[in-house]
Amino acid sequence: MQFQPQGADQRGVQAMEWRGDSLRILDHRRLPEEHLWIDCTDAPQVAAAIRDGVVQGPASVGIAAAYGIALAARRLGQAADWSAALAEDFELLAEARPSAEPLTWALRMLQERLRRPLGLTADVPALLAEAALGIHASDSEANRVMAKFGMQAIRRHDRQPQVLMIFGHAGALSGSGRGGVLGVIQAAHGAGLVARVDVCESRPGNAGLVTHWELQQYDLPAALHADAVAAHLMKEASPSWVVVGAERIAGNGDVVNAIGTYGLAVLAMHHGLRFMVVAPSSCIDLTLETADDVELGEEQDAPAGEALFDVTPADLIDVIVTEKGIIERPDEVKLAELLSPRRLH
Amino acid sequence: MQFQPQGADQRGVQAMEWRGDSLRILDHRRLPEEHLWIDCTDAPQVAAAIRDGVVQGPASVGIAAAYGIALAARRLGQAADWSAALAEDFELLAEARPSAEPLTWALRMLQERLRRPLGLTADVPALLAEAALGIHASDSEANRVMAKFGMQAIRRHDRQPQVLMIFGHAGALSGSGRGGVLGVIQAAHGAGLVARVDVCESRPGNAGLVTHWELQQYDLPAALHADAVAAHLMKEASPSWVVVGAERIAGNGDVVNAIGTYGLAVLAMHHGLRFMVVAPSSCIDLTLETADDVELGEEQDAPAGEALFDVTPADLIDVIVTEKGIIERPDEVKLAELLSPRRLH
Repeated sequence: MQFQPQGADQRGVQAMEWRGDSLRILDHRRLPEEHLWIDCTDAPQVAAAIRDGVVQGPASVGIAAAYGIALAARRLGQAADWSAALAEDFELLAEARPSAEPLTWALRMLQERLRRPLGLTADVPALLAEAALGIHASDSEANRVMAKFGMQAIRRHDRQPQVLMIFGHAGALSGSGRGGVLGVIQAAHGAGLVARVDVCESRPGNAGLVTHWELQQYDLPAALHADAVAAHLMKEASPSWVVVGAERIAGNGDVVNAIGTYGLAVLAMHHGLRFMVVAPSSCIDLTLETADDVELGEEQDAPAGEALFDVTPADLIDVIVTEKGIIERPDEVKLAELLSPRRLH
Repeated sequence: MQFQPQGADQRGVQAMEWRGDSLRILDHRRLPEEHLWIDCTDAPQVAAAIRDGVVQGPASVGIAAAYGIALAARRLGQAADWSAALAEDFELLAEARPSAEPLTWALRMLQERLRRPLGLTADVPALLAEAALGIHASDSEANRVMAKFGMQAIRRHDRQPQVLMIFGHAGALSGSGRGGVLGVIQAAHGAGLVARVDVCESRPGNAGLVTHWELQQYDLPAALHADAVAAHLMKEASPSWVVVGAERIAGNGDVVNAIGTYGLAVLAMHHGLRFMVVAPSSCIDLTLETADDVELGEEQDAPAGEALFDVTPADLIDVIVTEKGIIERPDEVKLAELLSPRRLH
């Protein structure tokens, strides 16, 4: 049986492909020079791919982990107590990148699926694969909705073609479909709002190199810049918005994202630019009051164990765009309200 | 006859060496992996070395250009009108890096030497070589004086070991002796004021890689970071000062320096850090009211013709350290006063 995530964008770049008995992941580290696909057939392989940066965007990492559990169940074939049988795989995947909230969220979704009555004759590996495909499809759907919301937020301030600046994981490879940030950029371009997209390299991870290449695939007017150029560009090219994704969002609206995001937010405030975070609601962790104590990861090659992420305080953020709606000037009340099950949208 | 610049530091790294009939330049582009020396025997070769980034620091560029004129005179041997005979070489060298004020200054010094009575029997090539050596030696001397002034400025605010952050061309290779910024760092370290030096890569030129290597040669506690990490470091590691050099300083105190300097200055202000510019007075161009219209160079490899320099407005600068003295909160009155010939020092 060949699964295809419902609503996935079949054109352009895809971060991964589910093949029923394996997960094919496009190796992010080799892009854009080389398109190397890596086949994972069990959870440890998926965990290694996450740990080693084969798959990098936070939403992608969550989707891959969900498929990892489906692969683990498939290898088991059957079990009396599925939760217990898969406990090690859940733990291994959770530890592959603890900072990524969509990873925690995806694994929680699958654990909840296992807690629901399964029935004695249920094909649990197939049920889990279906759940993983559902997570993949709903991420695509979230990206489509966020693209529209983000474009509308841009249009509300200025209907002219404008310069947008993006940073970190931003393209289709950061999730599914067109990805969060790239989705917004593309929708804005479609609405005639984009004169140019300035892409920062996002060292040391270099996510910007891949993002820039992705923008070119979609014929978007993009220019790649060293990170140190950002302030000069803000002064001289007058971009209107900085648009970034998120690794995790705390209950108060603090955003954990690729290192360098915080500095851009300070520079954006200094230059009067607006700052937009585009992230599915699965990035929001209401159990975190602030992001002050979040583990910020470590660059393994760096001599000083450089942090991979930084924290952008909520008060530097103008808008958080999620698939459940837009939050302007985020705070704990607005975030809790957004995630409230009573909320109709 | 073997010339040695008076007062040059014979230990550690040297950007160049005058050999009487040639100028040996350490190729900055290959460092720190490879120590390749390039021999220049005429002015066009020196101009090419400047243009191609073999020699990069603004003070070094000025010294090299002075030696370039000495080499040009040596090849001529004799001339009825030296100014006219060397006009093309002067122009070629001036155009090799128009942004670098020490280059303009050094060539003006040599032109002034030619305007003074030479005498019919004068050995003009030797006189010009002597003048170039004088420029080299006075840069070394300036660095020694600035090291002391800079250290004193740091000590005035805090006598404890502290974290300092540096950016761009900063080491011995940016000038002579220990260089401007590195001289300050070393004097501060000698005075027990340095817990760690955070060095930013300074992409796209990567001057920080060489600076970091130079700091290691002097056993200074240094850590190299991606430029995008700077804001996070300012928040988490609480450095006390950002210390940078200058390509040119306008009459009002605006500073042209390696691209990224401006962003660091904004971030420093946001985090309450002090910002120090260390540059010999030959960097100051009183004919420029502000740096708004300065040509900022272009990265030749960059697709969009990226600027190589940016402008840090005077109001973001706490201290400019020159060999003639320290200027706090620079403005046009203080800069004019500093360069006034009536000033006693």
